Amino acid sequence: MAVGNVPFPAMPRIEGVSLGSAMAGIKKADRRDLVVIELPETATMAGVFTLNAFCAAPVHVAKAHLGQCLEKHQAPRYWLINTGNANAGTGEQGMEDAKRCCAALADAAGVPVESVLPFSTGVIGEPLPMDKLLDGIPAAFSARHDHADAWEQAGEGILTTDTRPKGASIVVDIGDQQVTINGIAKGSGMIRPNMATMLGFVVTDARIEQPLLAQLLRETTDRSFNCITIDSDTSTNDACMLAATGEGAVVASQDEIAIFRNGLQRVMIELAQAIVRDGEGATKFVTLQVEGARSRQEALDVAFTVAHSPLVKTALYASDANWGRILAAVGRAPVEAFDVNRVVIELDEVRLVEQGGRAASYTEEAGSAVMAREEITIRIDLDRGGESATVWTTDLSHDYVSINADYRS
Amino acid sequence: MAVGNVPFPAMPRIEGVSLGSAMAGIKKADRRDLVVIELPETATMAGVFTLNAFCAAPVHVAKAHLGQCLEKHQAPRYWLINTGNANAGTGEQGMEDAKRCCAALADAAGVPVESVLPFSTGVIGEPLPMDKLLDGIPAAFSARHDHADAWEQAGEGILTTDTRPKGASIVVDIGDQQVTINGIAKGSGMIRPNMATMLGFVVTDARIEQPLLAQLLRETTDRSFNCITIDSDTSTNDACMLAATGEGAVVASQDEIAIFRNGLQRVMIELAQAIVRDGEGATKFVTLQVEGARSRQEALDVAFTVAHSPLVKTALYASDANWGRILAAVGRAPVEAFDVNRVVIELDEVRLVEQGGRAASYTEEAGSAVMAREEITIRIDLDRGGESATVWTTDLSHDYVSINADYRS
Repeated sequence: MAVGNVPFPAMPRIEGVSLGSAMAGIKKADRRDLVVIELPETATMAGVFTLNAFCAAPVHVAKAHLGQCLEKHQAPRYWLINTGNANAGTGEQGMEDAKRCCAALADAAGVPVESVLPFSTGVIGEPLPMDKLLDGIPAAFSARHDHADAWEQAGEGILTTDTRPKGASIVVDIGDQQVTINGIAKGSGMIRPNMATMLGFVVTDARIEQPLLAQLLRETTDRSFNCITIDSDTSTNDACMLAATGEGAVVASQDEIAIFRNGLQRVMIELAQAIVRDGEGATKFVTLQVEGARSRQEALDVAFTVAHSPLVKTALYASDANWGRILAAVGRAPVEAFDVNRVVIELDEVRLVEQGGRAASYTEEAGSAVMAREEITIRIDLDRGGESATVWTTDLSHDYVSINADYRS
Repeated sequence: MAVGNVPFPAMPRIEGVSLGSAMAGIKKADRRDLVVIELPETATMAGVFTLNAFCAAPVHVAKAHLGQCLEKHQAPRYWLINTGNANAGTGEQGMEDAKRCCAALADAAGVPVESVLPFSTGVIGEPLPMDKLLDGIPAAFSARHDHADAWEQAGEGILTTDTRPKGASIVVDIGDQQVTINGIAKGSGMIRPNMATMLGFVVTDARIEQPLLAQLLRETTDRSFNCITIDSDTSTNDACMLAATGEGAVVASQDEIAIFRNGLQRVMIELAQAIVRDGEGATKFVTLQVEGARSRQEALDVAFTVAHSPLVKTALYASDANWGRILAAVGRAPVEAFDVNRVVIELDEVRLVEQGGRAASYTEEAGSAVMAREEITIRIDLDRGGESATVWTTDLSHDYVSINADYRS
């Protein structure tokens, strides 16, 4: 299941960037499961990675290789992504396997091994099927191209339980030049990113110094991938990469940065929302908007408490206007000296809660009508400060249980 | 569904304590939904209540009435419990309704209104059907008795989505006297108590001063009801009450307190575990045992992170030894400077994880055999300190989603 119809957008070509994929048969036959993305030598690059302490071998290797390149004021040239196996919880063997994958692509491309960053997604705790990967890597490298469908093919090649590829693209004007930002992402379960989503890859043709690029990635991640949750489970393999090829307009002045940041934020939010819309078993796309908080963290705490509540999520699935569950979830959020009599809760245009109880204007008919919608905004005004936060999530359906009970079979 | 066969135990009579119930038709016809528990004038009493900021009207009233009695060095005489309606999120009207229920019982019993503590459980946000309650209260009062089945009938009268009544009883020797501790509890969903379970009522015939009784209740709650979770949702109506009738042995010396505390702890843990075994849709009873933590809070944080993980819970439901999900959940727990290479994870006698990855001795066959069991212990040794914690939880099944999607229909 997935919410709404979200076609893959047209993605403009970016000079110097080519993408290739292969069907390596890592977990299943006849599906793209290995992707190579090539970036030009002129690029700058930044990444954000999972904070899960059990982070996967490829995350360790990607961070190390990125660090080695940055020390030499260079950027890695290749992103190598496999699906079907996360290479997480695989100990020393996993580290060796991740490095061997990088070496195989580095050999084919004639670059040093640290120019390759590896990313893996799929089942945790099983060794990578190295024979399949070592066959597939040269094939994916040779297959790279920059035709109109290159990004969509790569978007397909990184999926696991996702039902559709996820892309976003925008063109913004920086001075008299046009800057393109293209991104793809994957993720459908184990989604409560903490620094980044399961996997996201964003490329622009702008020219941006590395420290600024890293700052922009952190800022926009905090208001996109770090604001979504499907099931509260943070993955071992989360990573989001941003590269600027440097072929196009310079982004350096305050004005240029502001324009670019807005464009990048839109791409990041579109990708993050696409992940939620394709959440495992999702039948609803839910926006949690918390206002009137004393701090952004307080607003986020309330939003995530409601977003993670299995009782709120099952009521959303049933289209049952059981708003008492929203009230109960707000009430257990970690808010100091919380005066619930000031709280207002609304579902779209229907007020549910005011003065500590059901709103005077509320009717079951109005509540049921709103709950029947496929896209719903739950607005919670704490009325105790000026800070706010927005978080996106899904419902909890029978299909979520089925997908995750049957995942390995 | 429910895990195992847990018959209601034989519960000895406690002098001065009688229990009555009625079928008031609050939500459904022909089921006990209203319970009165009478305590003698000699009793002392303590209670712990939900920390949910949106706590229900009866919780406010029960705390106030208990406080008024304690100020006069007395204890309330009656616990009045209704199921089918939580009287939460009901604002001022809810407060008035809760007080009117107390007044109705106080009238029938000829006691002051503050001698009655009200407790409600059921759907949130709907007004109490006062006509039914005002009819039922005198009926439940008149029906009270102290026969052998009195506790079981009361246990039935407080259920909501529970599939069976939950009781626990123990007799301990204090000096040359025998002390009885009887308890009943209810709860099946919205279970992640924060001070107490949905509803628990425990009575002993010991003689215990009120401050000591309150301390014993807090201590034993922290290692019983505060260590269970079904779906991470803390109720608006949680309360656990403990009364000591004072008819029997005095509990005052260190030795007497130690013996009594052990007995009380066993009753509380048995009730808490009974709630988990009857968790909504539960097919597994899972013990999370975290050792080697730097603090008890750290051990609890790790245990609850794993216990709340929808991915761990769906894998348990499927009896799928997808241990990578346990590893991923441990990895996202809020532990400072976490060295995952020291972590050991075991399922019953099967070691899953050591040195950052799959244990050398692990086989899929052994993992699958353990996961097929109905009762499973997940042991997590952090190897960084001497503190530990034990938490009990269930799996996440299709039935959990069905029960909660259909709850109001």
